[in-house]
Amino acid sequence: MPADCVIGVDVGGTKLLAGVVDAELTVHHRAQRHSRGADETAVLDTLVGAVTELREAHEGTIRAVGFGLPSLIDQERGTAVSTVHLPLRGVPFRDVMAERLGLPVFLDNDANCALLAEARGGAAAGASHALMLTLGTGIGGAILVDGRIVRGADGAAGEIGHMVVDVDGPPCPCGNVGCLEALVSGSALGLEGARVARASADSALARVAASGREITGMLVTELAHDGDRAARDVVALMGTRLGVGLTSLTNAFNPSVIVIGGGVIAAGDLLLEPARAVVRERALAPSSTTVEVRSARFGAESGMLGAAVMALDGVA
Amino acid sequence: MPADCVIGVDVGGTKLLAGVVDAELTVHHRAQRHSRGADETAVLDTLVGAVTELREAHEGTIRAVGFGLPSLIDQERGTAVSTVHLPLRGVPFRDVMAERLGLPVFLDNDANCALLAEARGGAAAGASHALMLTLGTGIGGAILVDGRIVRGADGAAGEIGHMVVDVDGPPCPCGNVGCLEALVSGSALGLEGARVARASADSALARVAASGREITGMLVTELAHDGDRAARDVVALMGTRLGVGLTSLTNAFNPSVIVIGGGVIAAGDLLLEPARAVVRERALAPSSTTVEVRSARFGAESGMLGAAVMALDGVA
Repeated sequence: MPADCVIGVDVGGTKLLAGVVDAELTVHHRAQRHSRGADETAVLDTLVGAVTELREAHEGTIRAVGFGLPSLIDQERGTAVSTVHLPLRGVPFRDVMAERLGLPVFLDNDANCALLAEARGGAAAGASHALMLTLGTGIGGAILVDGRIVRGADGAAGEIGHMVVDVDGPPCPCGNVGCLEALVSGSALGLEGARVARASADSALARVAASGREITGMLVTELAHDGDRAARDVVALMGTRLGVGLTSLTNAFNPSVIVIGGGVIAAGDLLLEPARAVVRERALAPSSTTVEVRSARFGAESGMLGAAVMALDGVA
Repeated sequence: MPADCVIGVDVGGTKLLAGVVDAELTVHHRAQRHSRGADETAVLDTLVGAVTELREAHEGTIRAVGFGLPSLIDQERGTAVSTVHLPLRGVPFRDVMAERLGLPVFLDNDANCALLAEARGGAAAGASHALMLTLGTGIGGAILVDGRIVRGADGAAGEIGHMVVDVDGPPCPCGNVGCLEALVSGSALGLEGARVARASADSALARVAASGREITGMLVTELAHDGDRAARDVVALMGTRLGVGLTSLTNAFNPSVIVIGGGVIAAGDLLLEPARAVVRERALAPSSTTVEVRSARFGAESGMLGAAVMALDGVA
């Protein structure tokens, strides 16, 4: 007899991943959908369809459903206040879904869900004070203090990719300049890689660029793993800059773990070792010595698993 | 018949201020001492002496005593883990004082106490999410999330003056470079004032410098209030830099109030208006529009009052 489970749903801007998950974070069934819909009704129908498919596939009881949304969440009203990619603005999401599914429904921002998953069974398991940065095209962030996600006065806390680390730095997509996101991200890695390719003619990076391929963050990471010195230097520079951001975070929060996730973490310790060295050298004691900087355990499934953790905790 | 009161004691590196305080934060009696002592026994005797004086002066009941210390506090053990100016390292402070005074004893870092006072009856009254920066020679900081002080994994959280805002910036006394404290503080205000005095020969700032007086942060502030354009520009520059730090904090914490205290706040809105403008322009919505940046209400008594708030809450 399968254990009682919940369903976690990570609703991305273009696709959704849903899973039947138990208290040990084992995933029993999965469902995927394109999440982009013409309007609110289409999007909600897609979500209900994915959840219904999983309930039919699972033999045991489903106790609740958690949704991770790429949105600013109003926890009191259970609404997505703003979503860049989905037409859910102002929808009384929690109430509508609870009624349609006949189950308790919980929702949170997807970055918060990712940290919930890591804090429950991943790289920050057992930590009461933890931070997560998701390094992708941009930077997502979330903060755990005393075992609880920090949401702030309007649910908008956790934008730690938009801490200014270089007062006269390059422009950031957010409109500010010198944010951590403007210096450290997949995009920044590609840009810096292209610059170094032009400057280091004898590197693999330069040869690949000469062949006409676009220098992306992913490509720089691959070449770094292959041992190209120029690519490794680019990744290490990115790691050093990341370390400056982590130094600020370490001084402000004194976390026991900082989890780094997102596509850029494919660089692994080539990125994290320089970052750790900066934190050890530049942050204040004792925080500088007690903080651990770790790769995320859960990749593409972190949002789904975290949404499930939220649902598990919600009905515990 | 006087109401039940507690005693709050702000133990600075050189002097202590103690007060009998009621639940409305009214101070009924005050006592001051030099706190610097040759050794642990001398310091503890001084503290006991000040508290005893107040208990004798007060007619009603004293229910508890709170101490604000310039220290990293181990709340579990009730000890001051490290204190720069006082020989209290490793002393089982809470237990020793509770035994000697025969009263419940509470202790916290002085910056945390200052924020507690402002959140109870000052500039952040009623806020669940608030930050405080104390701009003096350096920067002290404290963080309130969901109504509770953020202490971090080792009690070392809140060092928001040591967030890096300029990756290649000037050296900071902490050993790092480009910290907010290196760019915005009483010391930085004096240094920038001296630089501008050399560059703007027709300013009051330059005339005062020529007379041989040292250009301190306090002096720059006075001249700014007197209307000297050069001095005002220096204060405004400091405010702009402060605003960059507040932008990072606003994005990370989404606080409803940021309280600015310390000696530098004598500059008032000459400092805070430029800071507010930067936050409105550079922080992310909605945090940028909901956050209020305010002067501290309590000056030199904030630590004492906050220590009292801690004691009041501790026996509530």
